Amino acid sequence: MASPKLRIIPLGGLGEVGKNMMTVEYGEDIIIIDAGIMFPENDMLGIDFIIPDFQYLLDKKDRVRAIIITHGHEDHTGALPYVLRQINAPVYATALTRGLIEVKLKQAKLLNEVSITTIRPGDRLTFGAFTVEPYHVCHSIPDNVGLAIDTPLGLIVHSGDFKFDHTPVHGKPTDFAKLAEFSGRGVLALLSDSTNADRPGWTRSERTIDAAFDEVFRRASGRIIVATFASLISRIQQVAACAQRHGRVMAIAGLSMVENVRIAQELGYLDLPAGLLVKPEDTAKLPPEKVVIMATGTQGEPSAVLGRLAHGKHRWITLVPGDTVIMSAHPIPGNEEMVHRTINRLFQRGADVLYDTIAPVHVSGHASQEEQKLLINLVRPKFFIPIHGELRHLKQHAKIAAELGIPHDHIAVVENGYVLELDQESITVGERVPGGYVFVDGSSVGEVGPAVIRDREALARDGIVIAVVPIDSTGHVSDRPEIISRGFIHPRDSQELIEGARQNIIRSVNGYGSSPDALRMEVEEVLSAYFYSETKRRPMVFAVVTKT
Amino acid sequence: MASPKLRIIPLGGLGEVGKNMMTVEYGEDIIIIDAGIMFPENDMLGIDFIIPDFQYLLDKKDRVRAIIITHGHEDHTGALPYVLRQINAPVYATALTRGLIEVKLKQAKLLNEVSITTIRPGDRLTFGAFTVEPYHVCHSIPDNVGLAIDTPLGLIVHSGDFKFDHTPVHGKPTDFAKLAEFSGRGVLALLSDSTNADRPGWTRSERTIDAAFDEVFRRASGRIIVATFASLISRIQQVAACAQRHGRVMAIAGLSMVENVRIAQELGYLDLPAGLLVKPEDTAKLPPEKVVIMATGTQGEPSAVLGRLAHGKHRWITLVPGDTVIMSAHPIPGNEEMVHRTINRLFQRGADVLYDTIAPVHVSGHASQEEQKLLINLVRPKFFIPIHGELRHLKQHAKIAAELGIPHDHIAVVENGYVLELDQESITVGERVPGGYVFVDGSSVGEVGPAVIRDREALARDGIVIAVVPIDSTGHVSDRPEIISRGFIHPRDSQELIEGARQNIIRSVNGYGSSPDALRMEVEEVLSAYFYSETKRRPMVFAVVTKT
Repeated sequence: MASPKLRIIPLGGLGEVGKNMMTVEYGEDIIIIDAGIMFPENDMLGIDFIIPDFQYLLDKKDRVRAIIITHGHEDHTGALPYVLRQINAPVYATALTRGLIEVKLKQAKLLNEVSITTIRPGDRLTFGAFTVEPYHVCHSIPDNVGLAIDTPLGLIVHSGDFKFDHTPVHGKPTDFAKLAEFSGRGVLALLSDSTNADRPGWTRSERTIDAAFDEVFRRASGRIIVATFASLISRIQQVAACAQRHGRVMAIAGLSMVENVRIAQELGYLDLPAGLLVKPEDTAKLPPEKVVIMATGTQGEPSAVLGRLAHGKHRWITLVPGDTVIMSAHPIPGNEEMVHRTINRLFQRGADVLYDTIAPVHVSGHASQEEQKLLINLVRPKFFIPIHGELRHLKQHAKIAAELGIPHDHIAVVENGYVLELDQESITVGERVPGGYVFVDGSSVGEVGPAVIRDREALARDGIVIAVVPIDSTGHVSDRPEIISRGFIHPRDSQELIEGARQNIIRSVNGYGSSPDALRMEVEEVLSAYFYSETKRRPMVFAVVTKT
Repeated sequence: MASPKLRIIPLGGLGEVGKNMMTVEYGEDIIIIDAGIMFPENDMLGIDFIIPDFQYLLDKKDRVRAIIITHGHEDHTGALPYVLRQINAPVYATALTRGLIEVKLKQAKLLNEVSITTIRPGDRLTFGAFTVEPYHVCHSIPDNVGLAIDTPLGLIVHSGDFKFDHTPVHGKPTDFAKLAEFSGRGVLALLSDSTNADRPGWTRSERTIDAAFDEVFRRASGRIIVATFASLISRIQQVAACAQRHGRVMAIAGLSMVENVRIAQELGYLDLPAGLLVKPEDTAKLPPEKVVIMATGTQGEPSAVLGRLAHGKHRWITLVPGDTVIMSAHPIPGNEEMVHRTINRLFQRGADVLYDTIAPVHVSGHASQEEQKLLINLVRPKFFIPIHGELRHLKQHAKIAAELGIPHDHIAVVENGYVLELDQESITVGERVPGGYVFVDGSSVGEVGPAVIRDREALARDGIVIAVVPIDSTGHVSDRPEIISRGFIHPRDSQELIEGARQNIIRSVNGYGSSPDALRMEVEEVLSAYFYSETKRRPMVFAVVTKT
């Protein structure tokens, strides 16, 4: 019998390929790498977030040997409760990642039902046919790892989310020696982070932000509010150090950030000198030039701290002229409009706002082109698989790999849901596994599908009209039809239009002499046509025919 | 009596300040500069576009001496039909701008009712107290002008949309001599384009694109599709020249672009050699390496040519591997997600896609910081008013002006709707005029207001439920309540939820013994609470109580 091939499957139907979840399979053994959420696109109306559809794995649960989480960001951890409810495999994560995951599992009341093991770079963990060796790589959160996966067919290197930061804020630079060692052992395939494949050059070090912050702190005469991601522990560390250098105390605003700071402190990933931290509610009593507030909300979310400041709705903090707001984050694609609107509102309230196009107050956590090239040349893989990016980024990353001499047929660009099959000779794109992505809306998971979203789009476009039509036993309208509308017109300004609708109903119903169901459809059709001809809009029309 | 002050009012409630429309007033005389539309933001559900609210002008119509249009882009011309229907003032525009405007007025059946005058740089036009002198400035459309406005209090210089392109594709560089002359005469106030106030350096010349295009044309082995704005006449000229250099013919796809090309050719703004143009439907018969197709749809609009290509729905053109698509435009803020989705879909169809982050195939039409500084130093105005930008851009532009030595109290940053008052001594921000912006949705203008949009948001978030509850004369539910939902749940998958809703209705209604109106509200409340507790979502609930 021919030996089996390696199968690698990025799961989920949209978004960045293999970012949120992927599987590596050989024979009877499956390991899952990451289990994260993605954020809805602007036209996924009303959706809170999206999780990968892992139905493909449901009849293979018993073969899942491990779920390995590379780092503690939401897009790599957020779907874990949903996955674990159906596939209770043991979870492996580094200490900080584990701390952040445990908060989630506790909220989901799963903490006592799940096995979690702390891993360290350099460990060698055997899962059936696989031996997994996590190795240290820099990113925008501490305790981030890439994975070397030894398989019967050869060594797979997975970059994780990475950058080659020579002067990181936390811990050491990426473990170049380890990468060279993998190269020496011979690498069958490299899976590498494509996020910044369209950015030339080298991503700046986290450390370069210090100078920009010092400059802002030197100039600011009032309070400083620094907004960043709740999980950007190293940025919080940098602001803390800067606050101390400039004689300011620091408050943390935003539940998720408070929680992350607590965990990071407990686990020794955040070093805050005694006396530095104060409560947000106590900052009002202090001289403004002695205060820094760290806040959430860099993506323009109205309910996060920065959104509430922009709207003047925060419980403890009110912006005043003289305040300086630093947006220490870049908008996630799709959020640009909300972010810019928030910045404009902060300006309206009199604050000065600094963001990354006008001051170097943020750097990306992902490798740019030259770093991507370096990784490929350090590892010298036989096959190259760009992951973590939209299709356009993967294609660009594939071009880069080809420029470095990897043959075109040794590079595989796939989208989520496609099976990559490889052995020592070739890499091919196989079937597409069933599934896609799953909407999470309120407490419901997967009940909201594309059909419901299409209805929401229609409702959102032109609103609704409900017509209640009372008819008597002779089939005539017996009373004034009631017209209710939402999202269509302002009833007060549209008396004439509504009266016209009533006349149309009466004309079409009287003497129609049909079943209530046929009558209902007739009224809906007549009203739709009437509203379109009068307004060139198409509200959803519902008629309720009542017999009197 | 003190002499009156100059009043400058940027109109419209959101978007870029003074971009779409502004007025300059002195005593009894008013001139309007531009009358454009803006595109809705992502959460303005169902809105086609937005026009400035000019109600402030309605009781002053007779004082409006002129409407001067600086150039032919939609955000400066698109609202003209709406304005002219209410304020029939004479319109002044350069030849190409006039040609583009006339298409619009013809469609609106206004062409014969409006006076339009062609103007040229260097003309001096007197409108009451004002003498307006248009001057040539470069932008991404030919025949673009800035305006020098001589007033009884001094000279106002309005930059229009501008860049300092030393090697423009069309016509001459910006008229530096004229700007120096204004400076010599003494400039009271400069109003200047802030679009790129957060971009350091100097915007690249249109001409620099030629090299990037030549490179792509040299490498491409199949068809080339170049997508750009329908009004970017100079880009069309550049692609035409490049097509000729590389032995390709050119087709134009997209109604608006076809129309613009026709007008630009007629008026001599586009020089296309005989035999270059072919029809899109004829390109399929030609060898792919001999074809260039210019197309609309760079903003991800699904109904434009590029959107239809991405979805495989274009009548004449089907993308195949080997095709190269050049996105020669930058996403307008807010469109990033749609644009990136379109690019990904084009890749999916096998095309290679080049866009501005990976190849220099587009340049901005607006001045960057060094050009903005140069304009200020050329003109040396007493007062500085940043316009054409979001608040964050104006604030940045104001910082730049301050760095150049303009005193802070000589710089006025205002948002749309605020009155700027100036005389020879000072500039102040006065009252806010009534108005804001007006939604255009279908054929209705202004009937859709914020309340309607809020309803659409609620509908879009969680959908609707309509419950029809038949009750008998004893106040008991007499038949099975009917539950209709849209955008909330998929009814087939939610039998249990719906049955629970019925039970809740029956429990709450039976014996309630109240008026139908009170009953209706009771049912709506009970159902809302029930759905929230079951799903953590809040659909809009409507109850219709029918007596049987």
